[in-house]
Amino acid sequence: MDSAAAMTGSDLATIFDRMSAIGAHPGAGITRLAASAEDGAARRLFADWMSRGGARIAQDAIGNQFACFDWAGEGAPWVFAGSHLDSQPRGGRFDGAFGVLAAGCAALDLDAEIRAGGFRPSCNLAVVNWTNEEGARYQPSLTGSGVFSGALPLDDALALKDGAGIALRAALDAIGVAGETGSVPPRPEAYVELHVEQGRVLTEAERRIGVVEGTWAARKITAAWTGRAAHTGPTPMADRRDALLAAARGITAFEALVAAHHPHLHRSAARLVIEPNSPNVVVERATVWFELRGRDVVELDIAGRAVIAAFEKATRETGTRLEIAADGLRAPARMDDRLSALAGDTARACGFDPLIMRSVAGHDAVALQNAGIPSALIFIPSVDGIAHHPDELTHPEDMKAGLKVLTALLRRLAEGGFHAER
Amino acid sequence: MDSAAAMTGSDLATIFDRMSAIGAHPGAGITRLAASAEDGAARRLFADWMSRGGARIAQDAIGNQFACFDWAGEGAPWVFAGSHLDSQPRGGRFDGAFGVLAAGCAALDLDAEIRAGGFRPSCNLAVVNWTNEEGARYQPSLTGSGVFSGALPLDDALALKDGAGIALRAALDAIGVAGETGSVPPRPEAYVELHVEQGRVLTEAERRIGVVEGTWAARKITAAWTGRAAHTGPTPMADRRDALLAAARGITAFEALVAAHHPHLHRSAARLVIEPNSPNVVVERATVWFELRGRDVVELDIAGRAVIAAFEKATRETGTRLEIAADGLRAPARMDDRLSALAGDTARACGFDPLIMRSVAGHDAVALQNAGIPSALIFIPSVDGIAHHPDELTHPEDMKAGLKVLTALLRRLAEGGFHAER
Repeated sequence: MDSAAAMTGSDLATIFDRMSAIGAHPGAGITRLAASAEDGAARRLFADWMSRGGARIAQDAIGNQFACFDWAGEGAPWVFAGSHLDSQPRGGRFDGAFGVLAAGCAALDLDAEIRAGGFRPSCNLAVVNWTNEEGARYQPSLTGSGVFSGALPLDDALALKDGAGIALRAALDAIGVAGETGSVPPRPEAYVELHVEQGRVLTEAERRIGVVEGTWAARKITAAWTGRAAHTGPTPMADRRDALLAAARGITAFEALVAAHHPHLHRSAARLVIEPNSPNVVVERATVWFELRGRDVVELDIAGRAVIAAFEKATRETGTRLEIAADGLRAPARMDDRLSALAGDTARACGFDPLIMRSVAGHDAVALQNAGIPSALIFIPSVDGIAHHPDELTHPEDMKAGLKVLTALLRRLAEGGFHAER
Repeated sequence: MDSAAAMTGSDLATIFDRMSAIGAHPGAGITRLAASAEDGAARRLFADWMSRGGARIAQDAIGNQFACFDWAGEGAPWVFAGSHLDSQPRGGRFDGAFGVLAAGCAALDLDAEIRAGGFRPSCNLAVVNWTNEEGARYQPSLTGSGVFSGALPLDDALALKDGAGIALRAALDAIGVAGETGSVPPRPEAYVELHVEQGRVLTEAERRIGVVEGTWAARKITAAWTGRAAHTGPTPMADRRDALLAAARGITAFEALVAAHHPHLHRSAARLVIEPNSPNVVVERATVWFELRGRDVVELDIAGRAVIAAFEKATRETGTRLEIAADGLRAPARMDDRLSALAGDTARACGFDPLIMRSVAGHDAVALQNAGIPSALIFIPSVDGIAHHPDELTHPEDMKAGLKVLTALLRRLAEGGFHAER
């Protein structure tokens, strides 16, 4: 990707097209898993582009990248803007990457304005690429923002293993991302993230800009059933302890139960690992990643308990053993009211009528907000709400609208500072 | 394993221990997948041991190994004895390997007897290791015996791909097994296979030797559901087309339906591949390998049609698309009556009261018999019927009993020939 690195300037369409080529497979979307070779290429393109634009590149020990504009000097507060460059397998072009690149364009434009004497900044700005937001290769998701904000210990994060047993530390090492480099900026006074909606709410409301007031909560349960390997042929049926049958009953019961009693919860079982995986061996172990999302933590607790009871029933019926390998609640986030109000106000000043809305999905802004860093999350529309799929699309005019609002908001923060606006 | 290759002689316990060390992992059984490095080591040990014992090693284009004793010269009929050296992942030590090594020991003992003038053979003998009996890495199973006997075209077999997309041709190449070498013997007039039972029938009947009169039929159905990748968070539930949910309903319905209406059929779903396999992406495609085994082909047909109807219902309920990627019937085999009678008679002459029984599992002998090569299958007990599991065990006295009957039967065939006994 080194030729692409010659890119300079803040033309969003050009840098977006270059980034979209990394990990792209015709008809199969973008595969740029965290700490893969493709992620490495994306990181290099981002760093080269930003440093050609005058930024100083720093990187922390979990691989988060910071393109720093030290406008107000040491000791001045920081504002961050960004998102993530990793993708799902066969994911879309926009998810994450759009937010990083839009923040980069906004920063370059502001930097040019400052250099031309347009205004005098009261704080520094960093454009951030957070490591492994997606959680596709390494679970949990939001790894980089979780470590930065203190929710996830660094050593635990580096020790995470992918499905092939490769530790995140080794994978980062393999793409040349090892340890802290440069002077990493301190906790910022504000963080702003621009993201595609991944739903249809904005389109159905005929709005171009959404300001996210908060997110749904999520309960993530990893259930592992252990049975006993046996020949699928002669082994008497009564002797079998089939972990895949247990998991299938667990998945089926999970969906039926939640659909019947909590129909407005979003629910999924989307990852499953079985051992061994041979047509002639009764499955010994099946691990399933379940997710429940909703606004109400009490309801998630009730639903979660019912779900685990259903798993236990599937376990008894199949003579297997159940282990709840993980059961975590991601609390609903309330984004920073004052920063969100500022975002809404800025959107109106730019000529848009912002929709105050909720996000179902978690984003890096949620991890930071939950750790006490005032954060705002701005949405632009996704066509048909398609996400984590090659067909994901956001129209150019919506991209431009988002960039316009983000730039104006960052200008306001850079000029006056966030706390100064209090 | 080259030091182990120094083994000579027909001591079954010694060669069995050496073979059992290849691909062994403490507490996790034997992993010697077809055409893996471990399979390569097993092949070399077998070939070295047999050639040190005076055999000529030949190999056909699918990698079947023949340790040939050209006792009666060119033009004389052949008798084969053997089984397979590949294993399931975390499989047992006995499955397959015992039959190959027992046949090797029997052949070496007979060869010594012939050299000492004990009797004059009327046919040649080959000890055979068939490629990929297990079907763990490459489906279908019984690959080598299927190609040798003409049921499976060689090019189709070499083009089979494993879960990582590696063709069998390339995998064999990688362990130095490429193309035919030596003069491969022609279709034999008889094939004898000694195998561990993998069930509890012999133990419960308190017998040491089983003569298999025939096998169950098997219907193997591979069902692939296609949905649509989507974000597990914001995507509205009504928009989801979840291939894993469809597969889970398919597996659950399969078990419930067959248990209710065809309880004596053996049934399993033991291999499942999903794409992508990320906790945050609704599964786009799920492929499941189903198996039904029974004695009655008509019943398997009725059950198979009901099962597919249940799959279609799961498909409609989930808005996915179903493709029956494979649907094959392995007919019940009737082993050769005359050869089986000879095996039973030989067992009695050795002092055992053989049990005439059925095999649920397929074995290479079934592939050969179904292709018109008269075959006999002899069983010895498995403790608790455990198979395809590290705990698989056959007691030494049962191994000795099997070897004794096999040697006596091969002596009888080598001396008189099979057709001559007509």
